Amino acid sequence: MTEPVLRVEVSCPAWVEDFVDWERRYGSDQDRMRLAVELSRENVEHETGGPFGAAIFEVGTGRLVSVGVNSVVRLDNSTLHGEIVAFMTAQRRLGSFTLAGAGMRAHELFTSCEPCAMCLGAALWSGVTRIVYGASGDDVRAVGFEEGPVFPQSHDYLTSRGVSLEGGLLRDDAKRVLERYRERQGTLYNRVPGVI
Amino acid sequence: MTEPVLRVEVSCPAWVEDFVDWERRYGSDQDRMRLAVELSRENVEHETGGPFGAAIFEVGTGRLVSVGVNSVVRLDNSTLHGEIVAFMTAQRRLGSFTLAGAGMRAHELFTSCEPCAMCLGAALWSGVTRIVYGASGDDVRAVGFEEGPVFPQSHDYLTSRGVSLEGGLLRDDAKRVLERYRERQGTLYNRVPGVI
Repeated sequence: MTEPVLRVEVSCPAWVEDFVDWERRYGSDQDRMRLAVELSRENVEHETGGPFGAAIFEVGTGRLVSVGVNSVVRLDNSTLHGEIVAFMTAQRRLGSFTLAGAGMRAHELFTSCEPCAMCLGAALWSGVTRIVYGASGDDVRAVGFEEGPVFPQSHDYLTSRGVSLEGGLLRDDAKRVLERYRERQGTLYNRVPGVI
Repeated sequence: MTEPVLRVEVSCPAWVEDFVDWERRYGSDQDRMRLAVELSRENVEHETGGPFGAAIFEVGTGRLVSVGVNSVVRLDNSTLHGEIVAFMTAQRRLGSFTLAGAGMRAHELFTSCEPCAMCLGAALWSGVTRIVYGASGDDVRAVGFEEGPVFPQSHDYLTSRGVSLEGGLLRDDAKRVLERYRERQGTLYNRVPGVI
């Protein structure tokens, strides 16, 4: 075992810098979800991680605040789902541990697939007030990934705390990326022993 | 809004380096939990974050692999609960996105308080096979924090996936740290509007 480290660097793959147009305004839910799904697809094609992409926008302006792609395998870090990377970089950019700070505009998360248990909890702490996802948890499980302890009441819990959830936007596009990952035999990291 | 950043650094506060004895073997559950609770207490006393500490050990040898303290406010990052910092630094140290990799010893998480929804999901993906916590979710809520969508079946879910959970070890010590944080009027970050 190497010496203990108390420092970890989290970063997006280099292609993200060129791929993302930070000046663009994303005027519709479709535009916003298309970005999340494109990020998931590019992550698979570049072989930089799992088939999951996410983006955070300012509500109203359509301004892009941050993006995230799954980075578990690339960075040897099971916490770095696309959503987590997006939350971290959004808060870093805004210099705030919440995206719902005093005087801030509201923020929304678009993510190519239904958030797992970790990301659902993280979304609540992040300060986003709306979550929109493409493919469902069942779609994710169908290609061999897990979602963890997410139940119908988990979504109800977020709703009761002022965070809305909507699924199924560009679901077929998001599913195609999941299937592409399976075809390419991408790593099913954090697969739970005995499942599937 | 500043330029987008695609890089975030996660680190423990400087005092951790001096505080932790990496050579020591932690022979009992009490020893291991004492470290987690001491980390939570030091984090409050140094004013470097919330009243939560965690540590990851190799099962059998009692070797300390990593530690984490809540770093939400210090690093402007709502995902950096003590457990998440501990998972990240353990995986970084071992160069593996799972602590249950082929040929590895098993690993266990000791955390001063019951994991929130995010950390429970993260624990499942981390590869630890045992979670031991001190203070309960109710103890955490009693000082004004939230736990998110955690239900009895959330724990059952982890158990069914081979991750055991045990609570209440050194609970009174862990609770005293929570109360100390409240006395000092520490920030209740990510407090959900309208709750308490």
